[in-house]
Amino acid sequence: MTQPETGPVLGRLALIGLGLIGSSVARACNRYGATQEIVGYARSSATRARVTELGIVDRVVETPEAAVADADCVMICTPLSSYAAIAQAIGPHVPADAIVTDVGSVKASAFADLAAGIADPSRIVPGHPIAGTEHSGPDAGFAALFRDRWCVLTPRPEARPEAVTTLTELWRRMGSRVERMSPEHHDRVLAITSHLPHLIAYTIVGTATDLADDIRSEVIKYSAGGFRDFTRIAASDPVMWRDVFLHNKDAVLEVMQRFNEDLTALQRAIRRGEGQTLEDLFTRTRAIRRGVIEAGQHVPPDPARNGTQPVEDTPSPPGDAVA
Amino acid sequence: MTQPETGPVLGRLALIGLGLIGSSVARACNRYGATQEIVGYARSSATRARVTELGIVDRVVETPEAAVADADCVMICTPLSSYAAIAQAIGPHVPADAIVTDVGSVKASAFADLAAGIADPSRIVPGHPIAGTEHSGPDAGFAALFRDRWCVLTPRPEARPEAVTTLTELWRRMGSRVERMSPEHHDRVLAITSHLPHLIAYTIVGTATDLADDIRSEVIKYSAGGFRDFTRIAASDPVMWRDVFLHNKDAVLEVMQRFNEDLTALQRAIRRGEGQTLEDLFTRTRAIRRGVIEAGQHVPPDPARNGTQPVEDTPSPPGDAVA
Repeated sequence: MTQPETGPVLGRLALIGLGLIGSSVARACNRYGATQEIVGYARSSATRARVTELGIVDRVVETPEAAVADADCVMICTPLSSYAAIAQAIGPHVPADAIVTDVGSVKASAFADLAAGIADPSRIVPGHPIAGTEHSGPDAGFAALFRDRWCVLTPRPEARPEAVTTLTELWRRMGSRVERMSPEHHDRVLAITSHLPHLIAYTIVGTATDLADDIRSEVIKYSAGGFRDFTRIAASDPVMWRDVFLHNKDAVLEVMQRFNEDLTALQRAIRRGEGQTLEDLFTRTRAIRRGVIEAGQHVPPDPARNGTQPVEDTPSPPGDAVA
Repeated sequence: MTQPETGPVLGRLALIGLGLIGSSVARACNRYGATQEIVGYARSSATRARVTELGIVDRVVETPEAAVADADCVMICTPLSSYAAIAQAIGPHVPADAIVTDVGSVKASAFADLAAGIADPSRIVPGHPIAGTEHSGPDAGFAALFRDRWCVLTPRPEARPEAVTTLTELWRRMGSRVERMSPEHHDRVLAITSHLPHLIAYTIVGTATDLADDIRSEVIKYSAGGFRDFTRIAASDPVMWRDVFLHNKDAVLEVMQRFNEDLTALQRAIRRGEGQTLEDLFTRTRAIRRGVIEAGQHVPPDPARNGTQPVEDTPSPPGDAVA
């Protein structure tokens, strides 16, 4: 299982999409010698030109079909809504033994959309690096984005074992800890850890904006009081997040409904002045916080990384890259 | 209006309550020479003993009445629910020309509770330093907690002008920018910038905890994805926050109802797959985020502080104090 971390993991990597994640994958693969060659495709000519200027891939091509020719791995780094069309376009051109993967935040629909266009879906191993910032585009990416982060792979039972192994090694080389689970399980977990928090952040920022003008300017002024945290989350890429909610609808609606019921119960306790109910909830959640901190500090070292521990699991701001 | 920042602002300051905020006020007054003497009272003997060990006040006393004797300013730093009883206890003993103030997160009820026990409420100038951490107790405080933060004073029209001026200068000496508004206006603004965000954070952490066990441990594991931010907010002092919601009921219920309506509208858009609705909201909130950042960067320098600019308005972690 252990492999020397010296030679490249892949010959040729094809990146479809060169935004925050795609450009970070390129930079990380370069820095850690994970690939021999990277070919990149982006839909907009401006992005293609910028990536060429940045010099972070070996070749930039003008169609997704051109990108996947002779690739060992095809990694799709575009919004979820584009997967079906991309799969249709590249399907006939993906080499027989290439791995097809992605980095999207929802996995069940990702697999379904890719499998609809890619013959022999045993090549498909959907992936999700749990990493990102509020910024977008090829200039926003950086090599250390995936270091000490989880990357979740969600192969179906029929996926080729060697595809899973290779992809696991690729993400490890970029610094991530790799976990495996079913696409459906992934989508349920992320619904509560990520999708619902984002939805709530978007909502509260919108609610604040709709208040009367005299309140609103002061909301901005006094926004250190908790609100600011929400505005950071709510600045995330609108298209990406639109697609997350459209593609993880069932799991998101389920957690929203639970959240709604819990919030209404709290609203009722406040209206009725039930101080003990409130205090009990807040005491319980404080204990959970401590559990979260402890979980971050007690992740066992990954034997494939010579016993190094992940650092505390907080997003790295862009430009603050650590080798 | 400008005063030399050299001599003390107050002779004797009486601190009722010596937790995070009270102990930080003591440290800040010491560091910046704002007071000649500080007398402290805490309800628990353990806290009194610890504060004595820490040496951050000049005298620790065993009753609130003893604390306020000959004080120039009485600052109440206890949970909001204790104000009425404290006001009754100290009322007969507060010197005729002393200022009575507090640091609580809700102002209208604070004034009402204090005025019920303090004869001549023209001495009362409620205050709210918009600063804090998730930690509690006298060891959690630090001198720089209030630097470059807003402090809102909410005097009623009948408050003594010199009390307002002196208190303003005290908070400036501790490094804050001071603003003035009515108690009711304060409570409405804080309901959206602080109280609702906290309520939501508490709720979502509770919702996640109630999920099935197999989901829950992974929620903790993958909690970098937005959820972690919420857990930090939800670790705040349970008693303090219980009191906030009990004492700012009307304003909190109003923003909760608005938030609820907005969240339900979003839920409906997701259920109906209305991608454009979602994208429009997320685009709008991204612009607001930029407004928040700009507001933080363009606060005009305070002429009373020789033109220095506040630093970016983010909470300082404990132990990370900057002089």
